[in-house]
Amino acid sequence: MRVVVLRMGHRIPRDYRVTTHVCLTARAFGAHGVIVSDVVDTKLEETIRKVVRTWGGPFFIETGPPWRKVVEDWLAREGEVIHLTQYGIPLTDVIEELRCSGRDKLVVVGAKKQPREIYELATHNVSITNQPHSEVAALCLFLHFLWRGEELKKEFEGARLKVIPQAKGKKVVRLVG
Amino acid sequence: MRVVVLRMGHRIPRDYRVTTHVCLTARAFGAHGVIVSDVVDTKLEETIRKVVRTWGGPFFIETGPPWRKVVEDWLAREGEVIHLTQYGIPLTDVIEELRCSGRDKLVVVGAKKQPREIYELATHNVSITNQPHSEVAALCLFLHFLWRGEELKKEFEGARLKVIPQAKGKKVVRLVG
Repeated sequence: MRVVVLRMGHRIPRDYRVTTHVCLTARAFGAHGVIVSDVVDTKLEETIRKVVRTWGGPFFIETGPPWRKVVEDWLAREGEVIHLTQYGIPLTDVIEELRCSGRDKLVVVGAKKQPREIYELATHNVSITNQPHSEVAALCLFLHFLWRGEELKKEFEGARLKVIPQAKGKKVVRLVG
Repeated sequence: MRVVVLRMGHRIPRDYRVTTHVCLTARAFGAHGVIVSDVVDTKLEETIRKVVRTWGGPFFIETGPPWRKVVEDWLAREGEVIHLTQYGIPLTDVIEELRCSGRDKLVVVGAKKQPREIYELATHNVSITNQPHSEVAALCLFLHFLWRGEELKKEFEGARLKVIPQAKGKKVVRLVG
């Protein structure tokens, strides 16, 4: 099952930090890549690619394509579009169905008020609590439920650095070169 | 068990958005309040208090106190200090001990490189994966494990608005005057 995150509504420079958190959370919690729609952001791309070079992959980032085209192409290829929103159906009510379908998933998170059309186009509108909080937290918990916690054991290919967990302080080992 | 989040290293205006996400995630996932250390940020306080007035509480925010004093006072009152860091012991290795201790918890997240002293002062340095990602995601997943998912059913007191989950679109009801 392929899982790609679509970040909509990204504004330069306003959303640089939060979108970076979205991308890194997507990678760390087992998504295969992220598409940041409607605006090309080479600085963001370079930041994420540098993390992938250092900490491993595979993980891709693409910026610029129109969100509607990304969504419609995904649906045309029989994938599901999961829109994470405060207003949707609770995660725990739908996660089993989403896991069992086995269909590729485009997980959509917005940076600002989302256009009404995305609620209509999405296969599922899913809420990670019905409280206002953060698309970073929502994405993290959605992926955690989707993978049943297996993402916490994920190893990344081609990593140059690896953390050795410590009770106090930091220990990082170099793996290649 | 009382749980308070300590946000260290907040910079105005650079970290306004991410710190807002930290505070809202703390509230939505069942922390009792947040302390943003070392800098007074009245704009941030007002943003969070407005969310509490609209969506309910209780939840407090305080900005400005020195982080070391917050940590030392917490330890002096027999509380535990849980520092979330990429370099710490994996969440799944320590969460049972943290749940069972029943001691009040100060959950520490940084905005920039953390001072070495916090690794020494913390009762536990805990990693939410050993990958680089986001303190917002780390906080979300830590609280989710701490509360065993019960936080997803949390009701907030005094809320003026409440979301009624929808498969498509938005439904929000007004609860009081």
